[in-house]
Amino acid sequence: METISFARGVPAPECLPVEELADCARVAIERDGAAALLYGHTLGYAPLREWIADRHGVDSSRVVVTNGSLQAFHFVLATLGEGRRIVVERPTYDRPRKFLSEFDQVPVDDEGLGVAELERLLTGEAPTFLYTIPTFQNPSGLTLSAERRGRLADLATGDRLLVFEDDPYGLVRFDGEPLPTVFELADGRNVVYSSSFSKTIAPGLRVGYVVVPEGLAPELEELVASTYITPALVSQAIVLEFLHRGLFDANLERVRDLLRARRDAMLDALESELDGRASWSHPAGGYFLWLELSGTVATELLGRATAAGVTFVPGVDFGGGPGSARLAFSFASPAEIEEGVGRLAALVGTPAAV
Amino acid sequence: METISFARGVPAPECLPVEELADCARVAIERDGAAALLYGHTLGYAPLREWIADRHGVDSSRVVVTNGSLQAFHFVLATLGEGRRIVVERPTYDRPRKFLSEFDQVPVDDEGLGVAELERLLTGEAPTFLYTIPTFQNPSGLTLSAERRGRLADLATGDRLLVFEDDPYGLVRFDGEPLPTVFELADGRNVVYSSSFSKTIAPGLRVGYVVVPEGLAPELEELVASTYITPALVSQAIVLEFLHRGLFDANLERVRDLLRARRDAMLDALESELDGRASWSHPAGGYFLWLELSGTVATELLGRATAAGVTFVPGVDFGGGPGSARLAFSFASPAEIEEGVGRLAALVGTPAAV
Repeated sequence: METISFARGVPAPECLPVEELADCARVAIERDGAAALLYGHTLGYAPLREWIADRHGVDSSRVVVTNGSLQAFHFVLATLGEGRRIVVERPTYDRPRKFLSEFDQVPVDDEGLGVAELERLLTGEAPTFLYTIPTFQNPSGLTLSAERRGRLADLATGDRLLVFEDDPYGLVRFDGEPLPTVFELADGRNVVYSSSFSKTIAPGLRVGYVVVPEGLAPELEELVASTYITPALVSQAIVLEFLHRGLFDANLERVRDLLRARRDAMLDALESELDGRASWSHPAGGYFLWLELSGTVATELLGRATAAGVTFVPGVDFGGGPGSARLAFSFASPAEIEEGVGRLAALVGTPAAV
Repeated sequence: METISFARGVPAPECLPVEELADCARVAIERDGAAALLYGHTLGYAPLREWIADRHGVDSSRVVVTNGSLQAFHFVLATLGEGRRIVVERPTYDRPRKFLSEFDQVPVDDEGLGVAELERLLTGEAPTFLYTIPTFQNPSGLTLSAERRGRLADLATGDRLLVFEDDPYGLVRFDGEPLPTVFELADGRNVVYSSSFSKTIAPGLRVGYVVVPEGLAPELEELVASTYITPALVSQAIVLEFLHRGLFDANLERVRDLLRARRDAMLDALESELDGRASWSHPAGGYFLWLELSGTVATELLGRATAAGVTFVPGVDFGGGPGSARLAFSFASPAEIEEGVGRLAALVGTPAAV
């Protein structure tokens, strides 16, 4: 029996524009070999920085392109975030929870981060750094409401805190209209905006970026140069060629369609299999939904689920409660999702073998 | 007047196998898109780790492939090097001098690192981490002698220190027979061997690696995953295709021939232009030679040289004396090198304009 993975937060191989990228790579290297194959600008391949800058309506000097956006988070944390108290969402992406040595947490509800509770935390004088994923959050799939986005932007523009807005999933929207980013609402003041091409083109390229507040990119530059001299420029040249050919939007539409079908398959299967025994989020985009099981310990369930051929990540890894779980719908096909939810449902409420 | 750069320690564009890499990129992505374009193993693309492991006669579990070898140095420093006193060569590569907060220095002479002086430093109980570039050192171009390699390997195998052997230039040899690496002499005990494909294929790919002592790769793995999840796999797949096609050796021969001619041009020009007014190293490989000017302050000379259309890096950036300078012969053509040394020689001994 093939294991069905709701654990892997990665795109399915069929989401990848393999043929297009193969040709983009050939052409990008042939045409601009010296730029793509030598050391280049520490902050990234200049024409790609320009493209990103245009997209966000900023000067390209504010764009820092890195080997994946997680690396950018480290650079920002070690420079602009230095000496600040760290606040993260609960639940939140598991990697920062592992490498941050100390942090406060503010719970997320159906409207996203509890901004009122965050504001109460800000009464002291300690400069604060907020790490937030406002749109289709990893792990919950939840999205910060328009009203709370405005309040969070106000806190930033009022110099109450520095916001790191991690937005890898924002473009992977299945339904409804896009909300403005916190970065847009604050006009970039005290907001670092982070995104990547991992979910919209391919993660193995490792091309992520941040847009930093005006004048602050030089604070990162020395650290970046000391870390890896120059990011992997070949990858950035491939991405740029993909963009210049106008392939980005059509590919994104294809990815959205593929993932929407998977999200729908998971919601349908949960509805028919687990109604009344669990509750779950209804994400309008991204890779994940959040399951809350009553009376079941997810870490214990995982052992039995793995034996039954389905995996997921227990919510405790993200700071969630014992009955919570993150289900990724990005990797398995709709048919596998139906089968996998069935396998899971057969175990929920079943007492553990002794 | 075009500026001639003896400052840039990078290969000339004509050293790059552009056409070959363009085709390797196309084929690597087409054939193995899912592996190259998704997240992969934190420690690198498995078949490339195998190739490197075979080359060094170790198990592939000991190979960590990173986005350039400088990043690997950071990973090793933060894990295996933690809590150790740091010793570097004087002079040494400028970047570690910038980001290491504290270090001791051991001078390099014509036979390379002064191992006897290093040994005297090891009388205390402090665990020590040595950063060394034994072959065609950046910045001096000097090479550690066979005898001293043996003594350094003995210190490592005697558990007297942990050696980080940085060897990006070792294969770029113009004359003579290769010497065994410290890693080989110590059979890998207490030696981390570091190299990359930057000088043998192309730096913009950012593919570097370390081979760590047995059993220690897992100590790096969590840090690597927390830093960037997975390195840029597309670059690694391109390198692997280049290797599998058997292009590596022929390309290296071409690079050696190109650079040997540049080294020769620089030595000839120095001999005819600066004989008696300066001394310099005679590197048998690599990118750099080391100039010692008597009675001239290199930082002051640089200003006038730049105005005269030739640049270099003053030796003080590497921990050298005021009269020292690093001249890179990798980037300029032989004709430019002759012209550039002429421009420089015209300024040496000339009093500064007031």
